[in-house]
Amino acid sequence: MHQAVKRIAINTGGGDAPGLNAVIHAAVLAAQRRGWKAYGIRDGYDGLLKGEEGGVIPLDAEIVAGITAIGGTILGTTNRGSPFQCTLADGTVVDRSEELVERFRAAGFDALIAIGGDGSLSIALELHRRHGLPVVGVPKTIDNDLLGTDLTFGFDTAVNTATDALDKVVTTAQSHHRVMVVELMGRYAGWIALHAGLAGSADVVLIPEIPFDLDLVCQRILAQEAGGKHYSIVVAAEGASPRGQQLLTLEPGRSGRQPRLGGIGRLVAREIEQRTGKETRELVLGHLQRGGQPSALDRLLALRLGAAAVRLIETGQFGHMAGLHGQRLVPVPLEEATRTLRLVPLDSDIIETARDLGICLGD
Amino acid sequence: MHQAVKRIAINTGGGDAPGLNAVIHAAVLAAQRRGWKAYGIRDGYDGLLKGEEGGVIPLDAEIVAGITAIGGTILGTTNRGSPFQCTLADGTVVDRSEELVERFRAAGFDALIAIGGDGSLSIALELHRRHGLPVVGVPKTIDNDLLGTDLTFGFDTAVNTATDALDKVVTTAQSHHRVMVVELMGRYAGWIALHAGLAGSADVVLIPEIPFDLDLVCQRILAQEAGGKHYSIVVAAEGASPRGQQLLTLEPGRSGRQPRLGGIGRLVAREIEQRTGKETRELVLGHLQRGGQPSALDRLLALRLGAAAVRLIETGQFGHMAGLHGQRLVPVPLEEATRTLRLVPLDSDIIETARDLGICLGD
Amino acid sequence: MHQAVKRIAINTGGGDAPGLNAVIHAAVLAAQRRGWKAYGIRDGYDGLLKGEEGGVIPLDAEIVAGITAIGGTILGTTNRGSPFQCTLADGTVVDRSEELVERFRAAGFDALIAIGGDGSLSIALELHRRHGLPVVGVPKTIDNDLLGTDLTFGFDTAVNTATDALDKVVTTAQSHHRVMVVELMGRYAGWIALHAGLAGSADVVLIPEIPFDLDLVCQRILAQEAGGKHYSIVVAAEGASPRGQQLLTLEPGRSGRQPRLGGIGRLVAREIEQRTGKETRELVLGHLQRGGQPSALDRLLALRLGAAAVRLIETGQFGHMAGLHGQRLVPVPLEEATRTLRLVPLDSDIIETARDLGICLGD
Amino acid sequence: MHQAVKRIAINTGGGDAPGLNAVIHAAVLAAQRRGWKAYGIRDGYDGLLKGEEGGVIPLDAEIVAGITAIGGTILGTTNRGSPFQCTLADGTVVDRSEELVERFRAAGFDALIAIGGDGSLSIALELHRRHGLPVVGVPKTIDNDLLGTDLTFGFDTAVNTATDALDKVVTTAQSHHRVMVVELMGRYAGWIALHAGLAGSADVVLIPEIPFDLDLVCQRILAQEAGGKHYSIVVAAEGASPRGQQLLTLEPGRSGRQPRLGGIGRLVAREIEQRTGKETRELVLGHLQRGGQPSALDRLLALRLGAAAVRLIETGQFGHMAGLHGQRLVPVPLEEATRTLRLVPLDSDIIETARDLGICLGD
Repeated sequence: MHQAVKRIAINTGGGDAPGLNAVIHAAVLAAQRRGWKAYGIRDGYDGLLKGEEGGVIPLDAEIVAGITAIGGTILGTTNRGSPFQCTLADGTVVDRSEELVERFRAAGFDALIAIGGDGSLSIALELHRRHGLPVVGVPKTIDNDLLGTDLTFGFDTAVNTATDALDKVVTTAQSHHRVMVVELMGRYAGWIALHAGLAGSADVVLIPEIPFDLDLVCQRILAQEAGGKHYSIVVAAEGASPRGQQLLTLEPGRSGRQPRLGGIGRLVAREIEQRTGKETRELVLGHLQRGGQPSALDRLLALRLGAAAVRLIETGQFGHMAGLHGQRLVPVPLEEATRTLRLVPLDSDIIETARDLGICLGD
Repeated sequence: MHQAVKRIAINTGGGDAPGLNAVIHAAVLAAQRRGWKAYGIRDGYDGLLKGEEGGVIPLDAEIVAGITAIGGTILGTTNRGSPFQCTLADGTVVDRSEELVERFRAAGFDALIAIGGDGSLSIALELHRRHGLPVVGVPKTIDNDLLGTDLTFGFDTAVNTATDALDKVVTTAQSHHRVMVVELMGRYAGWIALHAGLAGSADVVLIPEIPFDLDLVCQRILAQEAGGKHYSIVVAAEGASPRGQQLLTLEPGRSGRQPRLGGIGRLVAREIEQRTGKETRELVLGHLQRGGQPSALDRLLALRLGAAAVRLIETGQFGHMAGLHGQRLVPVPLEEATRTLRLVPLDSDIIETARDLGICLGD
Repeated sequence: MHQAVKRIAINTGGGDAPGLNAVIHAAVLAAQRRGWKAYGIRDGYDGLLKGEEGGVIPLDAEIVAGITAIGGTILGTTNRGSPFQCTLADGTVVDRSEELVERFRAAGFDALIAIGGDGSLSIALELHRRHGLPVVGVPKTIDNDLLGTDLTFGFDTAVNTATDALDKVVTTAQSHHRVMVVELMGRYAGWIALHAGLAGSADVVLIPEIPFDLDLVCQRILAQEAGGKHYSIVVAAEGASPRGQQLLTLEPGRSGRQPRLGGIGRLVAREIEQRTGKETRELVLGHLQRGGQPSALDRLLALRLGAAAVRLIETGQFGHMAGLHGQRLVPVPLEEATRTLRLVPLDSDIIETARDLGICLGD
Repeated sequence: MHQAVKRIAINTGGGDAPGLNAVIHAAVLAAQRRGWKAYGIRDGYDGLLKGEEGGVIPLDAEIVAGITAIGGTILGTTNRGSPFQCTLADGTVVDRSEELVERFRAAGFDALIAIGGDGSLSIALELHRRHGLPVVGVPKTIDNDLLGTDLTFGFDTAVNTATDALDKVVTTAQSHHRVMVVELMGRYAGWIALHAGLAGSADVVLIPEIPFDLDLVCQRILAQEAGGKHYSIVVAAEGASPRGQQLLTLEPGRSGRQPRLGGIGRLVAREIEQRTGKETRELVLGHLQRGGQPSALDRLLALRLGAAAVRLIETGQFGHMAGLHGQRLVPVPLEEATRTLRLVPLDSDIIETARDLGICLGD
C-alpha cells in the first residue's frame, strides 16, 4: 500500500533525554526490516538547513549497534529557535520553513521521524500543516508533562537519578542535623519532584501545581525538630513558587529557548535558614537529570516508540505521534499532544499517598 | 462509617521483592494518619500461628522511617506451605486456618493487609471466603505475572538488575568472541526476560510463551558470525522450553513451594556450544533479581499500594486488592486476580518491537 | 598488659564521609572480641558536654549490624567549633576542654577513638597533650588531603560519585555542543578533581595546586571546537584559583567552620561563555560527594582502620592514628598527621598522565 | 635519545578486565603526544599471526575517545594458547613465535605494549628473551594476584560488583531466613572474596589460602541461628577447598586455558543444607565480575599504566612492566612479575580485621 515510502529521516530536538538513542536504534532497524533506508539529520533541522557536509548521515545496523545503552543522541540536538524563526548573522529573523521542506524533498525523503518535546513537536506539526511535511512524532521530555501519553522516556532515568541524590544527601543531613533543599527539574509540572520526593522519603515536596506557603514548610521542619528528627529533606521543582507569586505562565507549544528561572532552591533554603535557624544547604541537581545511561524502562519505552513511529509511517498516519495509553501504544494527533502540558492532577492518588505519608506539600 | 476499624495487621508472603518495605511504610503511616494502630505479623502467618513472643510487633513511624529505600521485608516472609496445610513435626499435615483466624480475632485485629503474590493472595482469599477474615491484598511479584494489575512492584528493579547484568556481560562476550547465555527469572511468564532482553540488546530472547526451536537459535548465531559479529547474547527465562517439551503446566493459585526447574540456561548453552562450535558460557542470575534497593518506580508503586490498601480497609472493600489500571489504582476482587497468571500477550507491541529489532524469539 | 582498658568511647567529627559507620562497626566488634565495652558519643563531643540523656550510648553487635553499607554516621557529627572554644548562649566563648576530659573520666572511659579530619584530629591531639586524654585517631576526609596516610576513606566514594556525574553530563554536553563546568570538592588539595577528571575524561582540570590561566583554558576549548569536538568538560576543584588570585591560605589544623568559597565553578563558566561564545553550563556537585553508600574500597579501608584503632588502644599508643602506608597500616603520631595538608605533588605520575592525555591543567 | 621509536603496537591478552580500554586510551594519546604512531593488534597475537585484513589497525585520538568509561577491549582478546604452541587445523601443535616476531618487524613496529595477566606476560617475556621482541608489559588481572604490583586494574570493579551482589542477597537471605552461598572468582588467591566478603558483611569467607573445615562453618551458622540471626552469608572463592583436598596446584606462568573448577559454591551449599538443615541457596557470580564500566579507581590506575608503558618504551626498558608500589609506579622486570602468584598474606591486617569482625574463615 505504502510501498512508495523508502527513505526516512530522523532528527532529535530540544533538551537531551536518556533514551533518544534507543528510539533511533529501533527506528533504524524497523526501517531496515522493511527494506527502507534511514538517515539522520544532525542537530535538529540544522543538518538540513546549513547544507554542510555530514549534515545528513546514512544510518544502518552497524552505526546503531549498542547505542540503546548510551545517553545523549548520536544525531545531536538543539534548542535554539525554530525553522520558522531563524536568526541570521546580522540579527534579522527569517522564516526558513519552506526552504527546509524543499531541501527535505530534494534529499528524496518520504517521511520524517521527529523526536522531541512540546516545542519540537509543535514545530513538526506546523511544518506538516503549512508545508505538508510527512512527519510522525515521538514524544520526548524528561519532565513527563506531554499530553497524549501516560509516560515519556527519560523521565524514569531522571527520577532514579534524583532519588539516588536524595538517598545520598539524607545520610549527610542526618549526620549533620541539617535541612537540605534539593532543586529538581520541572518548570510547569512537578512530576519529577513528586515521584522522586516520595521515592526518596522527602519531608517536604514543592511542585508548580501547588503554590506553597513557606510558613507551613517551616512549621513542619520545626515540628519534626521538636519530635526528635533533627533533619529535613525538602524537594522543590524548579517551577514551584510561593503562593501569590507564580513565576511562570503556562504557554506551551512555543519553540525556542525558555527563560531561565531564578533559583527557587536557593530562595527556599535561605528563607528556611532565616526563619527556623536550622543550618540549611541547597543542591541544584540540574543537568545530571538529563544524562547518563537510560534505565531499563526508558530503554524499552524508547525502543517501542521508535518501532511504532515506523509503523505510523507504514500506515501513513502523518501528523501523529505514538503515545502510551495504559499498556498500549496508540496514534495521537500532534495537535492534541501539543495543546497544553500535562500537569500533575491534584486528585491523583499519588498526591493522596504523599499526604498519607505525612509529606508537607506546602499547602 | 468504618470508625470501628482501629487495629490493622500487615504480613508479607512468598518470595522476596524490592518494595515490600515501602508498602509497609505507607500502610503504617496511612493508618496512623487515620488514628489507627498498625501491627506486623512475622514470617507470613507464622508470627500468629507459632504464638511466640515477638511474632506480632507494633509498627509506628519510627520503626518504618527510612525503610522505603531498603530491599527485603522487615517482617520476614516465608514460602513454606499455607495455614490450610501445615506440616507438623511428625510429618502429618493439618488445616490450621480456623485457628489462625481465631488468633487474629483474639489479637483484636480489624483487618489484614496481605502483601503477596499469586500463592499468598489465594490463601488470603480462602481465609476471607471460608472464615470471613477481613483481608485486603497488595499484589507482589517480581515476575509481573499477576492478573488484575498492569504492573507489580519489584519487577522494575529486577529488570534493571538483569539489564545491568546484560550490559556487563556484553563487553566480555564481545572481547572474547563468545556466546553468553543468561538465565533470568520467569517460570510461566517471560516479562523479565523480554523487557531486559530488549533493554540489554540481546540477540536471542526465549520466553515460556513462545516454545523455541534450538536450530533457529543456532542459525541466528551462525548468521551473526558470518556477518562479522562474533558474539551473541542469549536471554532465557527459566521457564522457557524447547518446542514440544513444555516443562511447566500453568496451575497458578496453588500455595506452597513449587518444583525447581532444571536449568534451561545450562541446557541451551551446552546445545549452542555443541551445535555451533562457538565458545559458550552461561550465567544464572537467580536471587540477584530479588534483592537490592528498589528502583524509584518500584518504591513509588509500592508506596501507592500501601496507602491504597488502607483506603480499601477504610471503605470496607475486603476480599479486594489494589491494582494499577493505566495510571489509576482500582479495587480488584482477589478472586479475579488469582484466577490464572498474566502472560505476555503475543500480539503485544513489545513482541513486535523485538521482531523489528531483529531479535530471535526462537520461533 | 593493658588489661585495665575495658570501656572505650567512639566519636565522629567534622564533615560526613562514607565509611564512618564501617569504622564504628569494626571498632565495636574488635572491642567486643577483647571483652571490652564500647560506647558512642553523639555529635562529636556534644554528647558528653551537653550531658543530655542519650548523649552517650552503649554500642554492641546488634546495633552495628549492617551499618557498614550505610553512609553517614549513626553517632552524628558536628563541625561547629571545638571544646576549646565553645560559644555560650550569650555569645561568649569559653574553653570547656578540661570539663570535657573530666566528664570522659567520670564516665569511666579508658580510651577514645576519635574519627575525624585535620580539624577534629587536631582537637583530639590537643586534648591528649594538655589534658592527657587517652585518644587514638582514625583519619577521615573525603578530600584525601591528610598527612600520614596514603588514602582516606570516603575519598573513593566521592571520586566515584564525581566520575559518575561526569559520565552523565558528557552525553548532554555532546548532544548540545556545550561547555560544561563541574565544580567538585577540594579546598586546598585537588585530589578529587584530578582523579575524577582523569577517570571521567575531562578536557580541563583545575586544581588548587596549579593556579590557572583562563586564557589557556579558553584556547583549549576553541582549539577543540576547531578540531571538530564541539563540547568540552571542565572540572574545577572548589579551591582552584586563577593565577595571581589565590583565594585560600593553607592553615590547616584549625578546628571549626571554614569560610565558604565563592563559587569558582560559576566564575569559570561565566568567563568561558563570555570569552569563547560557547554556551556554557555549570554544575556544583556539592554535598552529593559526601553521601551515599560507601564503595567497597572505602568500606574495607574503614573496617581496617576501626580494627586498627582498637589495636592501638590495646598497645597503648595514644596520641597516634592508624595510617595506610602502601599496603600496611602503621601508627602515625597525630602531631605529624596534622602538621599541614597533603597536596597533590606536582611531580606525581598522575599529573604526568594528565598531560599525556592532553588534559589542560590551566598552566 | 630514542628518536628511532616511532611505531608502537598494543595488544590485550587473557581474560577480560574492566580498564583495558583505559590503558589503550592513555597509551595511544601518550604515544601521539611524542609524535609516535600507535597500532592495535586484534585478539592477542592473532591479528598478526592470521594475517587477515584488519588484524592490525591504526589507533588515534578519535578512535579512543570515550573508551575509558567502557568495559571490555576494543582490540579483542583471547585466552586460547600461545604463539609458542599454536594448534593447526589438523590438530598438530607448532611453535609460531619466530614467525610472529618476524611479522612484527615486517610491520615496522618498534615496540609492543602487551597488556595481560600472568599467562600473557609470561608469553611476552619469552618472546623478548628468545626472539628479542621489544616489549613492555601492563599488568592486568581482576584477581589482583600478580607479583610486582600492589594492585591490578579490574580488581576494584570486580570487588564492587561482588559487594553489590552481597548487598542484594543479604536482604533476601534475611527475609527468608536462608543461608546464601556466593561463589566469587579467585582460583589461587582469595583477594576478591576477602575484600568483598568484608565489605559485604559476610559471615563466612572461604579463600584458597586457608583450607576450610566445613564443620566449623556449620557450627558458625548454627551458632548464629541460636543467637537469633536466622540467616548467613557465605562467600567462597572458586579456588577455596576443604582442608586436605586442595584442588589446584599453583603453577603460574603457564599460558593457555586452565581447567575449569568443579563448583565449590554448589558443594558448600549442599553440605551446609544437609548438615544444618537450613534452607541454602547458591549464587555463582561468574562473568559478571569481569564486565561492566570500570570504577573510577580502575580507570585511573589503567590510564596511569598506559602512560607509564609509553615512558618505559621511551627509556628503552623493554622486558619490564609498570607496577604500583605504594603511590608510585616503578619498572618491574617481567621475570620477577611472573615468577609466581601473589597470594593473600596470612599475616595481613585484613585477615586480622576479618577475625576482629567475627568472620569465620573456616579454620
